[in-house]
Amino acid sequence: MKSILKSIIEDSRDSTKLGQVATYIPELAKGDRDALGACIFDVNCDSILEGEYKTKFTIQSVSKVVILICALIDNGKDEVFSKVGSEPSSDPFNSLLKLEINENHKPLNPFINAGAIVCTSLVSGDNGIEKFSRIHNMMKKLANNDDIDVNYSVYNSEKLTGNTNRAIAYYLKGANIIEKDVEDILDAYFKCCSIEVVVEDVAKIASVIANNGVAPWSNERVIPEEVNRIVKAIMTTCGLYDTSGTFSVNVGIPAKSGVGGCIMAVVPNRMGIAVVGPALDKHGNSVGGVKVMEDLSRKLSLSIF
Amino acid sequence: MKSILKSIIEDSRDSTKLGQVATYIPELAKGDRDALGACIFDVNCDSILEGEYKTKFTIQSVSKVVILICALIDNGKDEVFSKVGSEPSSDPFNSLLKLEINENHKPLNPFINAGAIVCTSLVSGDNGIEKFSRIHNMMKKLANNDDIDVNYSVYNSEKLTGNTNRAIAYYLKGANIIEKDVEDILDAYFKCCSIEVVVEDVAKIASVIANNGVAPWSNERVIPEEVNRIVKAIMTTCGLYDTSGTFSVNVGIPAKSGVGGCIMAVVPNRMGIAVVGPALDKHGNSVGGVKVMEDLSRKLSLSIF
Amino acid sequence: MKSILKSIIEDSRDSTKLGQVATYIPELAKGDRDALGACIFDVNCDSILEGEYKTKFTIQSVSKVVILICALIDNGKDEVFSKVGSEPSSDPFNSLLKLEINENHKPLNPFINAGAIVCTSLVSGDNGIEKFSRIHNMMKKLANNDDIDVNYSVYNSEKLTGNTNRAIAYYLKGANIIEKDVEDILDAYFKCCSIEVVVEDVAKIASVIANNGVAPWSNERVIPEEVNRIVKAIMTTCGLYDTSGTFSVNVGIPAKSGVGGCIMAVVPNRMGIAVVGPALDKHGNSVGGVKVMEDLSRKLSLSIF
Amino acid sequence: MKSILKSIIEDSRDSTKLGQVATYIPELAKGDRDALGACIFDVNCDSILEGEYKTKFTIQSVSKVVILICALIDNGKDEVFSKVGSEPSSDPFNSLLKLEINENHKPLNPFINAGAIVCTSLVSGDNGIEKFSRIHNMMKKLANNDDIDVNYSVYNSEKLTGNTNRAIAYYLKGANIIEKDVEDILDAYFKCCSIEVVVEDVAKIASVIANNGVAPWSNERVIPEEVNRIVKAIMTTCGLYDTSGTFSVNVGIPAKSGVGGCIMAVVPNRMGIAVVGPALDKHGNSVGGVKVMEDLSRKLSLSIF
Repeated sequence: MKSILKSIIEDSRDSTKLGQVATYIPELAKGDRDALGACIFDVNCDSILEGEYKTKFTIQSVSKVVILICALIDNGKDEVFSKVGSEPSSDPFNSLLKLEINENHKPLNPFINAGAIVCTSLVSGDNGIEKFSRIHNMMKKLANNDDIDVNYSVYNSEKLTGNTNRAIAYYLKGANIIEKDVEDILDAYFKCCSIEVVVEDVAKIASVIANNGVAPWSNERVIPEEVNRIVKAIMTTCGLYDTSGTFSVNVGIPAKSGVGGCIMAVVPNRMGIAVVGPALDKHGNSVGGVKVMEDLSRKLSLSIF
Repeated sequence: MKSILKSIIEDSRDSTKLGQVATYIPELAKGDRDALGACIFDVNCDSILEGEYKTKFTIQSVSKVVILICALIDNGKDEVFSKVGSEPSSDPFNSLLKLEINENHKPLNPFINAGAIVCTSLVSGDNGIEKFSRIHNMMKKLANNDDIDVNYSVYNSEKLTGNTNRAIAYYLKGANIIEKDVEDILDAYFKCCSIEVVVEDVAKIASVIANNGVAPWSNERVIPEEVNRIVKAIMTTCGLYDTSGTFSVNVGIPAKSGVGGCIMAVVPNRMGIAVVGPALDKHGNSVGGVKVMEDLSRKLSLSIF
Repeated sequence: MKSILKSIIEDSRDSTKLGQVATYIPELAKGDRDALGACIFDVNCDSILEGEYKTKFTIQSVSKVVILICALIDNGKDEVFSKVGSEPSSDPFNSLLKLEINENHKPLNPFINAGAIVCTSLVSGDNGIEKFSRIHNMMKKLANNDDIDVNYSVYNSEKLTGNTNRAIAYYLKGANIIEKDVEDILDAYFKCCSIEVVVEDVAKIASVIANNGVAPWSNERVIPEEVNRIVKAIMTTCGLYDTSGTFSVNVGIPAKSGVGGCIMAVVPNRMGIAVVGPALDKHGNSVGGVKVMEDLSRKLSLSIF
Repeated sequence: MKSILKSIIEDSRDSTKLGQVATYIPELAKGDRDALGACIFDVNCDSILEGEYKTKFTIQSVSKVVILICALIDNGKDEVFSKVGSEPSSDPFNSLLKLEINENHKPLNPFINAGAIVCTSLVSGDNGIEKFSRIHNMMKKLANNDDIDVNYSVYNSEKLTGNTNRAIAYYLKGANIIEKDVEDILDAYFKCCSIEVVVEDVAKIASVIANNGVAPWSNERVIPEEVNRIVKAIMTTCGLYDTSGTFSVNVGIPAKSGVGGCIMAVVPNRMGIAVVGPALDKHGNSVGGVKVMEDLSRKLSLSIF
């Protein structure tokens, strides 16, 4: 499997030249466009690392999976889905549009920014600091790594330039979907997006979900079974912005992408996979990451379909 | 399993009172609002029938699965997806909107009317009669039933009142997505929708897909493996109109609904399921059918997630 | 005034190079991109002709003004506006979008294709031939020219390629906004669009509207006073597709443009103006025509504001 | 004329029962639903007052006219229209939608909230206090009344509940349409909306615009001629939210409405009119105000068309 992953990464290197590093946050623009690395971490704790697997990157939208896990644990399914939908969006990842058309003003799903901001507001904690702490701790536990932390340059950059997210949050407050202080919730959200990781961290998070919510290294249940099932369902229908359907057809693995260039994928009962490649396509997904996942799925028969 | 299905159907009977029989086609309005029946047909050819399983109904949008199968076999994946997308739509099932917003005028996916009309135009055959014959034969083979045929009252009603579908088809022709004669293609499409079946027919179709494309009764491969995988993926992300995501969370089984009141569901490697209940919710899905599927999935642990 | 018009046309010639002749109908693509001509016909029957005023062109959307006049005379204001709105559209001239969003499925206004098709269906006459005859006769009377007639090459081209208009018409029929035979109504509509004229014809039509509905050459009332007022109001708010507001700010004269390259303008109590220049901007308006109108309005103080 | 106005107001009283006082700001909900009053102030300084003309109300969106006047004087037409469009919106008055669809992210026109916020940001002044002061002084001059001032209860209510406006402003900042501090600009904007007036104040403002920008009482030019013309054009195409076109057809007078219940109307070269009636229709326009304007226009032949 190691040699397969190695050759897939080599075959996919050219594709990164078709993408562009995210530039909407100045700090993200410093990402290495040519980098491509991956980690497979299976439910027996065997791990394979290939390519530029040491590349550090911010987790960005992949954190929405962890935020959703915390929101579901802390509030229950019914409460969460009374404030955020579970339908995929066919609009681009930076669209405000769908936020409003929806008849009851609910964000369409937990993996668009509006939905993730609502989920952040639902996580336990009296304020943004406590909410972030809750999510941060969950992420450390899922990655089995106490050292993962915020990249404060990226965080400051997010906070300074995050006016579209501010617009979304104030809209949600105006529609009574979120109730707390907007800047305080956004602060927690920006910190979640700015957590710096390597592919091994992300593959481990995915391995817990692949293992039905139980950490493979400790056999401890971290995610309740129903929450784990919901998360996989939403990763399948909403995980890759407005290309989630195409990814289901071509790859068929529950996954979540982020503009830091990471794709996290969950192969049920078998393994967690993480690929990083900061060059993005116009949908906001890692070009190299999508290519690696397509090849891996086909060569290792990983599709759930 | 028979007693479980029986009690689930009894428990779900009340829910049908919350729905309305489709009325946009006069013939459909004659459907029995109170009926609720189901069939489970497993990959070992064991079958369970419960409730009003003898209810005859027109297959309507469930035929889109068979149309897609034929289009993929006859043209290959690349050709089909150059003319129709594979992204879910978060718009209501009767929306023209998404047809046009999409930058290249392609219908979003094969399971909205626009997409199914495109797929019908792609099926082999020099004209509408031949195309319908191709789809009709596939349906008979998948259902292992040579007697299934068009309900001509419904067909005439569809044809007479199908102006919104005509609008869609002319729009697609104006955008060069379909090339042939519009009325001829629509004729084939209206016939597909008007095929009359019982739940056992539909459960058998689903059982072939569940059995990876091989008919359980003959061990003959009817659907190529890749086509079968694609169909399950699209059923998962697009099968229940704008509630596909919610159905994934609550049920987690590849499925397709139709306004005739049927839901066809595919439990990979295990069974095909069909439920009929003509009372529909506002999304166009059978109220009783959704309820039965939720209960079945939970009680028999059928979710793929 | 003649010398002013002459110098304005010369100054505007360069602007035509920025535009493109309409190509969506093959016959229209034969238009002379460099031509620019104009006619001013005042309420005292004095007329000025400058530039390529002999250029023949099809009237296209400018006919929507005459169609609206007939619809209003034949049905009354209340009946017409129960089936078509009177609000401007900020969407591009070829958009289906607004057709559907409107809560009661009514076209937004009589000057988008959908609205003009509805108005055509409302004009007196048992069938398309009679309806067209009614509109054709009105146009001859308004232009004081019995010789204006359909360009049958353009008409055939429109009919052959008019699938988007077919889509609109079937949509309207599906929504019960139009009731008659779709192809029959479209036939009348396509003929109206294909009437061939020169700028003097159009300037005369405009002069009747400028003269409060009374033909300057005969003192005969052709348009009832209220109808005439309504037409000027809708020309002001909806006359130039999605640039009507900008035209109001920059020119301030009730007007209607067509993709044949004509702009018809009505200066109340003073004159009718017609400019032809087949090179269009991306909004579907004559580039040279808009430029000539801006300069004329400023130099002759023609704005109604 | 006084007796005509009197009888029109009496005839229109019943219509107010069809409307609802604005409730989105708690303070506005205190408005007197049954009140209906009007003032006509002509260019010879003759004035007529009828009905509950002493009713105090906050000027709300009618202030957008004064904000636009200041923005145009301080920046010139080209600069203003590089940041805000001049096209009518067919969407409801509280819609975010059109803000984003517009390809260059510009608000559609200066009379939707987004456009007025942009115009506020363009008014001279180093900060919100100076900008408001500039607009406030212009309003006092136009109304010939140094005593008009902010209603601080309404202002505080606006500020506290103005999250949708905050969303709009942050969106505009994210799109680089506004550059300054969002809360500072909003503060000026909320104050403008909260200025308390009576109909005579508003009729006087309208009389200056009717008199081509020259104050009738002093013969002093307050508004430059081109600015005055632009303002009348935009009042005509965009003054009554998504019923501007219908108002043009039925009334035909440049006007602006506000959710405080006021309609300000400008009859060129003749008079300014203001009506107040806090009961609003679903479009946000005063029900009684629209009725009074329709009757006045018809009985006094005030339409510009």
